[in-house]
Amino acid sequence: MAKLYHVPLSPFCRKVRLVLAEKKIEVELAEERYWEQDPDFLRRNPAAKVPVLKMDGRTMAESAAICEYIEETNPEPPLLPRKPEARYEVRRIVGWFDDKFHHEVTSKLLYERVNKKVMKTGFPDSGNVKAGAKAIKYHLDYMAWLLDHRRWLAGDTMTLADFAAAAHLSSLDYISDVDWNRQEAVKDWYAKIKSRPAFRAILADQVPGFPPPAHYADLDF
Amino acid sequence: MAKLYHVPLSPFCRKVRLVLAEKKIEVELAEERYWEQDPDFLRRNPAAKVPVLKMDGRTMAESAAICEYIEETNPEPPLLPRKPEARYEVRRIVGWFDDKFHHEVTSKLLYERVNKKVMKTGFPDSGNVKAGAKAIKYHLDYMAWLLDHRRWLAGDTMTLADFAAAAHLSSLDYISDVDWNRQEAVKDWYAKIKSRPAFRAILADQVPGFPPPAHYADLDF
Repeated sequence: MAKLYHVPLSPFCRKVRLVLAEKKIEVELAEERYWEQDPDFLRRNPAAKVPVLKMDGRTMAESAAICEYIEETNPEPPLLPRKPEARYEVRRIVGWFDDKFHHEVTSKLLYERVNKKVMKTGFPDSGNVKAGAKAIKYHLDYMAWLLDHRRWLAGDTMTLADFAAAAHLSSLDYISDVDWNRQEAVKDWYAKIKSRPAFRAILADQVPGFPPPAHYADLDF
Repeated sequence: MAKLYHVPLSPFCRKVRLVLAEKKIEVELAEERYWEQDPDFLRRNPAAKVPVLKMDGRTMAESAAICEYIEETNPEPPLLPRKPEARYEVRRIVGWFDDKFHHEVTSKLLYERVNKKVMKTGFPDSGNVKAGAKAIKYHLDYMAWLLDHRRWLAGDTMTLADFAAAAHLSSLDYISDVDWNRQEAVKDWYAKIKSRPAFRAILADQVPGFPPPAHYADLDF
């Protein structure tokens, strides 16, 4: 069976978990406190971060490379369209969330509020939290703009782009940092993706010291 | 003709330039001072960064998505191997450089020394410069370890992984931040890739106020 070294609220790990679940690939989860730099873990991934996936006899790192590998070796159901221009758009949006959104929002809210406490590296920087809370509004508006003429973020089918976005938003929703009333289109999109069977394990996550709000696992949030 | 909005020392722009040149796709270059947030440019790319490529009637952003698009629409010569496990390894290494190396080295050396001056956002932070100078050693050693049992970084053929790495290293070499004497295998690898026709335009780059060292464009460095 595949094995995923992860931390529950990491959006990069969640993206891989969603892809595996959607493809119905069974996986054993192992929580990895990667910041403690256990030598065994460093041997598995010299980049010293999660996710790390053991599958098909190999040990893999880098969530984007892992997701493309899963898609190529397990094409059903497809999470990347066929045409190059449609594939480009999916990858652009994955990059948007894993780079820009991660830098402007996730790292400023989730990492300040949760990671610093869990890793014992200090207290939340209120300037960062403020900047993240401001930036997420712009990103929700951008998503609404995309969803205004598309059923899913990258087009009319659900793709890796939706999982990348949902991975970040679900982690932020766990700490009540998403204002679902800001954009109805985004709320409708999240309700759709949240109700998929692939999402169940993520909605059951519990991080000691950080109980999720009641609406987190509620499909009628 | 394709048109690329770029800045000369951006490793992400250089990676795209190298891929276009290797595929013999002609491109017009337009320097874009993206930090000035020109409204016309923001319309082209709401993420407000370079590279932005106009090609085949569309406007594209995010270097990883752009490179995959070019590879899919212009497969010759191939810069991604065929087998999923080999493609995974290429993408893992691209991610290593564009994420980890970028964060630990490029942003701490190039952005401190050059971008801050060009964008008029302050002076180099000596703590960052020191951290970057220390981190690059580890990365050069990691490259040497990879090259110990491979001809190129991701295997026995030249791929996107080599261009991603060469894009970062060439930008750092422009400001004399690469110690080519540290690892002979890395120097040999760079000499091979530097002598490709695709590299010529990059070796001719000039940034006002930052003259490159004599060895920068020298194939016998």
